[in-house]
Order: sequence, then C-alpha cells, then structure tokens
Amino acid sequence: MAAAPVWSVDPRTGKQREQVAAEATAQEVDEAVRAARAARPALADRTVRAAFLRTAADLLADAGEHLVEVADAESALGPVRLKGELARTCHQLRAFAGIVDEGAFLDVVIDHPDAGATPPVPDLRRHKIPLGVVAVYSASNFPFAFSVAGGDTASALAAGCPVVVKAHPDHPALSERVASVLRAAAARHDVPAGVVGLVHGFEAGVELVRHPLVAAAGFTGSVRGGRALFDAAARRPVPIPFHGELGSLNPVVVTEAAAVERAEEIGAGLAGSMTLGVGQFCVKPGLVLVPAGAAGDRLVKTLADAVGGTDAGVLLDHRMRDGFVAGVAERAQLPDVASPVTPGAGGEHTVSAGFLTVPAGRLTGPGPHDLLLEECFGPLTVVARYTDAAEAHAVLSRLPGNLTATVQLSAREAAGEGRGAEILADLTPIAGRVLVNGWPTGVAVAPAQHHGGPYPATTSTSTSVGGTAIERWLRPVAYQGVPEPLLPPELRDDNPLGLPRRYEGRLER
Amino acid sequence: MAAAPVWSVDPRTGKQREQVAAEATAQEVDEAVRAARAARPALADRTVRAAFLRTAADLLADAGEHLVEVADAESALGPVRLKGELARTCHQLRAFAGIVDEGAFLDVVIDHPDAGATPPVPDLRRHKIPLGVVAVYSASNFPFAFSVAGGDTASALAAGCPVVVKAHPDHPALSERVASVLRAAAARHDVPAGVVGLVHGFEAGVELVRHPLVAAAGFTGSVRGGRALFDAAARRPVPIPFHGELGSLNPVVVTEAAAVERAEEIGAGLAGSMTLGVGQFCVKPGLVLVPAGAAGDRLVKTLADAVGGTDAGVLLDHRMRDGFVAGVAERAQLPDVASPVTPGAGGEHTVSAGFLTVPAGRLTGPGPHDLLLEECFGPLTVVARYTDAAEAHAVLSRLPGNLTATVQLSAREAAGEGRGAEILADLTPIAGRVLVNGWPTGVAVAPAQHHGGPYPATTSTSTSVGGTAIERWLRPVAYQGVPEPLLPPELRDDNPLGLPRRYEGRLER
Repeated sequence: MAAAPVWSVDPRTGKQREQVAAEATAQEVDEAVRAARAARPALADRTVRAAFLRTAADLLADAGEHLVEVADAESALGPVRLKGELARTCHQLRAFAGIVDEGAFLDVVIDHPDAGATPPVPDLRRHKIPLGVVAVYSASNFPFAFSVAGGDTASALAAGCPVVVKAHPDHPALSERVASVLRAAAARHDVPAGVVGLVHGFEAGVELVRHPLVAAAGFTGSVRGGRALFDAAARRPVPIPFHGELGSLNPVVVTEAAAVERAEEIGAGLAGSMTLGVGQFCVKPGLVLVPAGAAGDRLVKTLADAVGGTDAGVLLDHRMRDGFVAGVAERAQLPDVASPVTPGAGGEHTVSAGFLTVPAGRLTGPGPHDLLLEECFGPLTVVARYTDAAEAHAVLSRLPGNLTATVQLSAREAAGEGRGAEILADLTPIAGRVLVNGWPTGVAVAPAQHHGGPYPATTSTSTSVGGTAIERWLRPVAYQGVPEPLLPPELRDDNPLGLPRRYEGRLER
Repeated sequence: MAAAPVWSVDPRTGKQREQVAAEATAQEVDEAVRAARAARPALADRTVRAAFLRTAADLLADAGEHLVEVADAESALGPVRLKGELARTCHQLRAFAGIVDEGAFLDVVIDHPDAGATPPVPDLRRHKIPLGVVAVYSASNFPFAFSVAGGDTASALAAGCPVVVKAHPDHPALSERVASVLRAAAARHDVPAGVVGLVHGFEAGVELVRHPLVAAAGFTGSVRGGRALFDAAARRPVPIPFHGELGSLNPVVVTEAAAVERAEEIGAGLAGSMTLGVGQFCVKPGLVLVPAGAAGDRLVKTLADAVGGTDAGVLLDHRMRDGFVAGVAERAQLPDVASPVTPGAGGEHTVSAGFLTVPAGRLTGPGPHDLLLEECFGPLTVVARYTDAAEAHAVLSRLPGNLTATVQLSAREAAGEGRGAEILADLTPIAGRVLVNGWPTGVAVAPAQHHGGPYPATTSTSTSVGGTAIERWLRPVAYQGVPEPLLPPELRDDNPLGLPRRYEGRLER
C-alpha cells in the first residue's frame, strides 16, 4: 500500500498547491528517531549548540523572503504578520543561544562532605543533563514560532536534545523548507542532519509519542488532539513528560469603574485583540465580563461598531472554518444569547468576526451555557454581562485553566484603591499570565514570560515561551564522590566554565 | 456497612497491637481535602511557613522517645535506626524552613518594557505560587523520613501547599501520632489543623488522587502501586502531576582493577549496604557486575562470608516477607543461577540475607533472566560475573531507570587513567545519582542531592530528597503591566523581601 500523499493546500481557495511528501510510515518514524538519537553526542558541547542556534537564526533570516511567501500561500496569515513571526522566531533562537552561553539552566549545586550532618553528607555535585530525543508537535496558527524552528525546537536544541518534528498539515511545504534550513545550519557545525527530523501524518504523530527512544514531547494545538497524545504518553510502558498547550478561554474582567472611565477604549481594544490574526491566537480573549448598565452598554456598542467593520478573513484551513461556523451556531442558539454582530460564514472561503452576549447569571452554575466556557477557535468572543461583583466572581470561580486572565481597571483601582487586588486574587488561580489594562494577544519572548497555565491551558506546569522553556527537556543528575579528574567540568570546584551555581549552600552568580 | 478497622500490627509476631482508626470513606477523604484547602490562606505568608516547619521539628524531637517506641513496635526497624531517621526528618523540616526564608525557589524574574524587541516586551514579572492541596503517599520503609512528616510533606508545606497524607498500613499508629504533632505545631502559628490531613485505607488512597481539589501527588512505594496511582492521576478529567518513586535496581559495576586492588573491601562494603535495614532501602544495590576470575572470586568469597554471618531479620510486614521468599525462589531456579548464600525464610517471622550469582552473559539479551533486572525488596542482591568490558556494557545498556548507579574503581582509574570515564558515561543515562567508590545506601539531605531517576525509579524528573524537592509543588505565574500597588511584594523593583532574582536579564543574589 502506497503511503498517503501530503499536499500543501491554499486556504484562500481550498485548492491543492503541490504534493510535498508522503505520510511517514512506522519505519520512517523509527528511522527519524534513531537518526535524532545518533545526533546527541554532537550536541553535547554547549558552544556547538549556541553556535548552531545562531547560525539557524541567520540562515532563516537569509531565506526569509522565500519562507514568508511559502508560509503565506499555505496559511493565508499575510506577509506582514508572517515577517514579524519569522523575526520573532529568529530572536527566539538567538535568545536560547544566550541562555546556553550563560549556563544557569544547568542548575549546578555543589556540596562538600559534612560528616557531622544527619545523615552525613558526602561530596555531592548536581547539574542537569538533556533528556534525549524530543518529539515536537507543530501548531497550525504559528507556522514559524510554534512549528519546526519554533520555541519547542529552539529550547530542546538549547538543552542538548535532538528533535523529531511532526509537521502540521496546514503548512507541510514550509515545514520541509524550514527543516532544510535547520539542517544546513547543523551541517556548518558538524552536527548530523538527523538532529532535526521531520515527519508528516496523523498516524506518524501517534507512533512518534509511543516510540521507546523518544524521551519527551512538546505540543501546541487543540484540547482533543493534545489530550489524545498526552494519554498516549502516559500509557507508555515508560511514560514520558508531555508538555502540551491545549486550549484557553483567556477571560477578561472589566470593572464598573473601568467601563465608566474607558468604555470606548476598552471596546476598541477588545475588538482589536479578538480579531487579530482572524481570532486564531491561543491567547485570544474568549470571554469578557462586562458590567450590565449604561457604561457596559457603551463598551458593547464600541465593540459592535469595531467588529462589525472588520473584513471577513481566511482561516488556516477549511476544517477549522467548518468548526468555527458550527461552534458559533451551537452557541448562538442557547437561551438568552444574543449576537449583536453575528459571526460565522463570510464568503466561500472566509469567516466574519462577531461576538455573542449573555447574562453572566447563565454562567454561574452548570448547564448548557457551559459551552460558552469552552474555547471556540476563530474570531468570536462572548461578552457576559454581570450585575454585581459577586456574580463576576462566581463565573471566574467556575472557569477551567487558562493561559492568560486580564482585568481592565480604572485609574483609581490601578492605584490600589478599590477591587483590583481582589480581582487579581480571583484571576491568579486560573491562569499562567495575569494582565492589568492590557490585552493578552502578543506573547513577548522574555525571561519573565510564562506561557502555560492550569489544565487545559497546559498539561504541565511548564512554559513554552521564554527562557525557562528549556527546563522541560532536562533532568538532574547528582554525582557522589566522583574524583576531580572524572568530574564533568561543570561540576569542578574551580568552575572553569564560569557557571552560576549554588556552592556550599550559597548562590554564586 | 461499618468502615474497615485499621490495625497496628507487630511484624515481629504478626499480632495485632491496637485498632488505630477506620479506613476513610469517600466522604471522609473529601472532608480532609476540603479542610486542607481551607488551610491554604494560612500558609500564604512565608514567615508563617518557616516558623511552622521549625516548630514541627522541635515538637517531633520533643516527642522523640515515644515516637521511636511506637515506630519500632510497628516496623521492627530498631530504635537506633529510627532515632537517626527521626533526627534526619527534623533536620529536613528545618532545612526546608531555611529554603523558605531564602526564597530562591520563588524563581523571581523581572523584565521591564522594551518596545524595540520582536515582539515588544511589556512589563513582565514572574514568580512561583503553590499548586494547592498535595496528596502524600507514605512509604513502608521510612516511617518518619518518607511518611507523614517526611520529605514530601516538608517540601509541600514549604511551598505553601497543605497536604493530605495516605498513611502506610505498616505504621498507622505512628502516622496518627506524627500527624497530631504536626497539627500541634500548626496551632502554635494559627494554621488550621486541616493543613495536615491523614487518611487510612487503599480505597481512600485511590479516592484521594482522583479528588478534583487535589492538585498534585507525591508517592514512595512499589512499581505496581505507584503505577496504578500514576495512571489514575493521568486519567483524571484534569490530570495532575504525580511525583512517584517506584523502584530501582541500583546497579554497581566493579572494574577488574578495582577487584584486584580491593576485593575484600568491596565485598564487605557490598554486604553492609545490601543488608542494611534488612535490605529494605530503595537504594539497596540489587545487581552487582563483578569480573569473572580470581579477583572477582575473592570479592564473592568475602561477600559470602559477611552475608552468611548476618542475623536473620524482620521485614516490615508479613506480606513483604512472603513476597521476598517467593521472589528469591523464582529467581534462584533460573538456569545458571547459583546461591552461594541462600536468602529466604529465616524463622517464622524473619528472613535471612543472601545473594545469587549468574553469568552476565545471561543478561545481555531478553529472556527469563530479565527477572533478575527487577527489584526484589529485601536482603537479596544478584552478582553477575562478566568476562569483559563489552559484556558489562551490554548489561548496563539493558537496565531500566534507577535511583543510583555505582562504580568501584581502582586508585589509578579514579585518577582518570583507564575506563572510569567510559563507565560513568554508561551509568549517567540510567540513574539519577552516580557514585564512585561508595555505596548508594544513605541518602544525604543536602542541596545537591537528587533522589530520582529515569522510570521506574521516578515517574517525573523531580527529586524527593534535597532542597529542589520543593519545585514539585509550585507553578509559575507571570504578571503583565500590573501597577506597583497591586504587585505581590516578591515582584517589586525595590525587592523589599531581599529575594534572589533575575532582574533585567541579570542574576542577582
């Protein structure tokens, strides 16, 4: 039986562009994993890793024009957004090179013997080592930043782990090209091409997470797909860490005082954030608690004007378009739900943005309206009108985990007077990033970033953006009584590599 | 239906000592979890946590004589060992108080806005917060250090997480008494008694890991029990982190040169380590690769003399005794397996220590001898005689994950000449702690400690001993654009709490 062909498809027309590859057989997945494993020794040297990452950034930037063209043809995300995303991806690769140079992620701890302790302490020295081959599952909505050369790959390579990437079917042609660029970068540093494997196909993805030589996985995608792979990872004879980013509602709370003060600004900001990239961001605000009454009405009016004036857009693929149209319809027919700007099917290949409103009282207890507490991927948000703080609190306390949670405060509340602290205390337990007077779209690549949150936002407590994303692919090893000549240089007393460390209990930086 | 009674049993006689409690019903588990959850606010203040941990250590030490007596009556581990274990437990509580004071575990990272970055960086500040209620599953073999007041509890409380402990059926009376001491310590700092819940019973343990308000679990025990709970944690609608320590073979490699140089010393050291505590340590050396030939023969002779002279001992319970006797018998009847000192049933309530030998060639490929690569809990070790380095390497490459792996080197090899580096490279991938010229029993409580390893040693990359054990019960949260008056003090620019942090990319200590 011939392997199924993998086609690149233009979402603007639904037409096949080119046959890119064939879906990987189990044997091909095995070969990719073994080739990745064989590349491990080449990544053992941190200077090689850092140089490889920097060259990868350079070569991706060099090929930028062509890559953006291919990405746009497959994703319809537009050249402006894609150029920015590629720049972000290159920045991310370079940031991880800097992290590799610094070496703080090695978490070096050195204790000397203490015979008087209970029990006695021997010579103990601990650092972190790479886990092994990492399976990376690409996202549909970030063809660069969360795909073949994205944050999972960058952080895994930085940690010393080769990767096998499962390409997303929405951008197989780009995936092949980016993988080629990464391999060209690897070759310049004598790292074998197998360091970045690439496989296509749903079945191949399942084979990958089950492969005995795969040591960990990173995933960005849907709750359904992510949970299935999480379950497969947990059911292995030897379970592996599965760092999945699955789904998020990204609630926003607007206080009464904020609505009074900035109804129009907030309405316009919300419209911009929820329609950005045709609503295809994992941090799109999907539920907004807006006070009932006149100020809230002004906010909703501004939102309606702004969203109503938005052009129809192309989603990443037609399956998503169907899912969005169906998801909107299912929500819109719930009792007490209104649609001031009806989202849904636009033209033959497009969708139009819109939003629904519902009294928040419908969301304070279990019922059919719980559907409104589930992510609907695309340019839709739900505005829940609350009558008092207790009602808003009741809704927040029922939400599943989120990547982000946001509050819009008045100037007085932001200065610490009023309900700001109380609302932050409501938002912190349900999110990994909490914002005041901002919008969650736009995820900065920075040391303090945390892109993760309680399930289903992520399947672990880790982040997929920011420097600490490297921690996912490492495990500690302690060496006891190992003589100096046999110690890794990272663990020597004289610190030849100049690493930050905890030495004799004290932090040295 | 009346709840099943929980009896304290004397393993030296198999007789019931007293009825301690009843197995917890589902409703009682729910009450314990809710009471623990209600104690969270009382733990929010780090100074309260540190003081509580120190008082707990003081009160446990004060009650030491009585506690050791109860522990000995239930475990037969003997007062000397138990006194040491209690001291270790108190030291551990105090060490975590120090870790709470220092606050490095909060992992504070602060970034200021950078509009020129790609994408722009807003004001972002990240620290770690407690996960919530932690379920702790006590170990049979450490009634103090890995039980009610053990490392999981100490690290969870240090992180700000209340606990509900599932008592081990081998020491229910001690569990109740230790829980009372912890609650007395809590009361002195106005922390509600629910901060340390305690439940008995197998079914209660399963209920506990499934409870929607339980946020994470720590476990020390068997592969079978741990895997069942791990599976339950992973199958929840909202999966939770399950940090389990399940089983470990703890391989030891003796080089030819080391055997020539120190056959008697190594044989005696091995005998001491494998029979310590009647072989009931998770780090007991369970497989020892000894060279074939005269030097190895001397080692085995010394081992036989030392182990043969060991008194029969009482295991923690009669089920374990039956398991040990059956496990030994099953292994001893394998082809080519000899038993120079036959372990097994001693007296009516005791077992005798012993060891088996097998040609290492029997372990280089799959077959019935794979049973020898599984942990057998109790005073048994397997000596595999290897003919050359390639054979030893082949056995090591087939081993499952371990808590520890040890090599015995000659003086010349320890100085870096010979095969030392090569063997360390074989051992590092299969263990969490790698020792040279030591024995794995005796797990120091120290910052550099790592007590964990590839599955089945542990179900995660974390440790259950040492300061970094606290990381298991925390998750990061980033705050974006939060005005100073609303920021947690941990995240303020002026650092009022004097925390170590990464500020504007630089490490500050």
